[in-house]
Amino acid sequence: MSLLTIGTLAFDSIETPHGKADMVIGGSCTYISHSASYFTNNINLSAIVGGDFPQEEIKALEDKGVNMEGLQIKSDGKTFFWAGKYHEDMNQRDTLVTDLNVLDDFDPQLPESYKSSEYVMLGNLTPDIQNSVLDQLDGSQKLVAMDTMNFWIDIALDSLKKAIARVDILTINDEEARMLTGEYSLVNAAAKIHKMGPKFLVIKKGEHGCLLFNEGNMFFAPAMPLAQVFDPTGAGDTFAGGFMGYLAKTDDISFDNMKKAIVYGSAMASFCVEEFSIDRLKTLDQDQIDKRFEAFRMLMAF
Amino acid sequence: MSLLTIGTLAFDSIETPHGKADMVIGGSCTYISHSASYFTNNINLSAIVGGDFPQEEIKALEDKGVNMEGLQIKSDGKTFFWAGKYHEDMNQRDTLVTDLNVLDDFDPQLPESYKSSEYVMLGNLTPDIQNSVLDQLDGSQKLVAMDTMNFWIDIALDSLKKAIARVDILTINDEEARMLTGEYSLVNAAAKIHKMGPKFLVIKKGEHGCLLFNEGNMFFAPAMPLAQVFDPTGAGDTFAGGFMGYLAKTDDISFDNMKKAIVYGSAMASFCVEEFSIDRLKTLDQDQIDKRFEAFRMLMAF
Repeated sequence: MSLLTIGTLAFDSIETPHGKADMVIGGSCTYISHSASYFTNNINLSAIVGGDFPQEEIKALEDKGVNMEGLQIKSDGKTFFWAGKYHEDMNQRDTLVTDLNVLDDFDPQLPESYKSSEYVMLGNLTPDIQNSVLDQLDGSQKLVAMDTMNFWIDIALDSLKKAIARVDILTINDEEARMLTGEYSLVNAAAKIHKMGPKFLVIKKGEHGCLLFNEGNMFFAPAMPLAQVFDPTGAGDTFAGGFMGYLAKTDDISFDNMKKAIVYGSAMASFCVEEFSIDRLKTLDQDQIDKRFEAFRMLMAF
Repeated sequence: MSLLTIGTLAFDSIETPHGKADMVIGGSCTYISHSASYFTNNINLSAIVGGDFPQEEIKALEDKGVNMEGLQIKSDGKTFFWAGKYHEDMNQRDTLVTDLNVLDDFDPQLPESYKSSEYVMLGNLTPDIQNSVLDQLDGSQKLVAMDTMNFWIDIALDSLKKAIARVDILTINDEEARMLTGEYSLVNAAAKIHKMGPKFLVIKKGEHGCLLFNEGNMFFAPAMPLAQVFDPTGAGDTFAGGFMGYLAKTDDISFDNMKKAIVYGSAMASFCVEEFSIDRLKTLDQDQIDKRFEAFRMLMAF
């Protein structure tokens, strides 16, 4: 099945306790698409970059089966830039710089062939853009998921709630789920978010794993304990890419299959954090992914 | 098989965002013994109380098959008292009062019949007392576990390391594992703790679940997501009681059976937090425990 991925392609400058990386490739759509490409080569990407975005990175995605027809290249503009620094515990970070650059003008016009994508992953963007993409879809979708962040809860709550009401799955972190609902208990937060629209909810807890809720059903997957988390940037998007990629590949949105998708997403995220940027996502192979999936089974089965 | 439990019987005064409880029954050995009693009625308790400790609480434990021969009652003394207040997120608390009272004189002399207990759970106490109990055991034990806390890492590290070197299982929380080893990664912390002696290690992460390590093998169990965590006091000890109680009952210390023990421990802890003090632990029945165990299977199986 086809998977529409929308979000940012970006440059990131990252500092972690383990090192620094300047102006490396980042962006939600980059991580989502690379991760999903291990499950399906039928990916429709929609994003915007400036003339400074490396041609070889575009080609790297194309080589993985990502359709770039929806990529807008503003040759006289600069690509979105984010800089951040992680604390010692890696679970917290400070944003140092956010230069929207070309992202400020992003008004995605989906190519005709994208509008019937069976699976849709709306990466973190302004809720207005997410709503605009939802407007353009032809309504035949099997599953539409969206991600968001605390910033939009703060400054664009009405538009965000409108978007949330229109999707099947919301992915959000624990702190944001609490912000959005005013409920500390994630069980109560999930109940309130279901009432906002989404039948499915994924609450991401970083190194503490993630929870899948579906109106009464609940599933938990831990993050794989690792000797070293090198750089957490993009882990949530990589998770979403693996999760939606696996669902698009198997075309089965039963709760049982979604559990497997959660574990594949968690496996992909566990690779992502092993190196800076998308470096680890570029060198993976199916055997490594299968082995990590089995490592999750060992970790969780009793 | 018999299970020796040693630790505190106490009075607690607790404040949580959901309410207050003054001078209720607490203490590590109380929680451990009540929890374990759902799995075995062959429990040998060693602890000390003052003359103010309610007779009916002693009888409640006896009625559950707990041998009280090792309970010292200092009739002119006062029972250990702890007061604490939980923060909004329930994962952090401030200790308001610690009155050692009779605990200051605790010098456990194990009754002869206790010395060959096959399973031993040393609750959190000074490492010197833990070492003294280890000295008195006859060496025939199948499995000896101990718990500890940050306080002893700070002020009694040498004695603590001596005790740790003598046990099969250490139970410790994530922050303490990091303190003890200087390693942020729990995988690396576990490797260092194995080198200190224990073949098995349980790292407790509160609402984020717990990890079991056994020299290369790793297992994770989440905490059950609940609509309301009423009072987390005693959850770690209740976990330990369920874990060791199940092992004593089944007399099987294979890694596979230990995984089940971890889940039973987690199930017991999930009940503990539903009410103040040991209230919920007193009203449980086997059917409720089995159902909660199955709820964990639903939460974790894929």
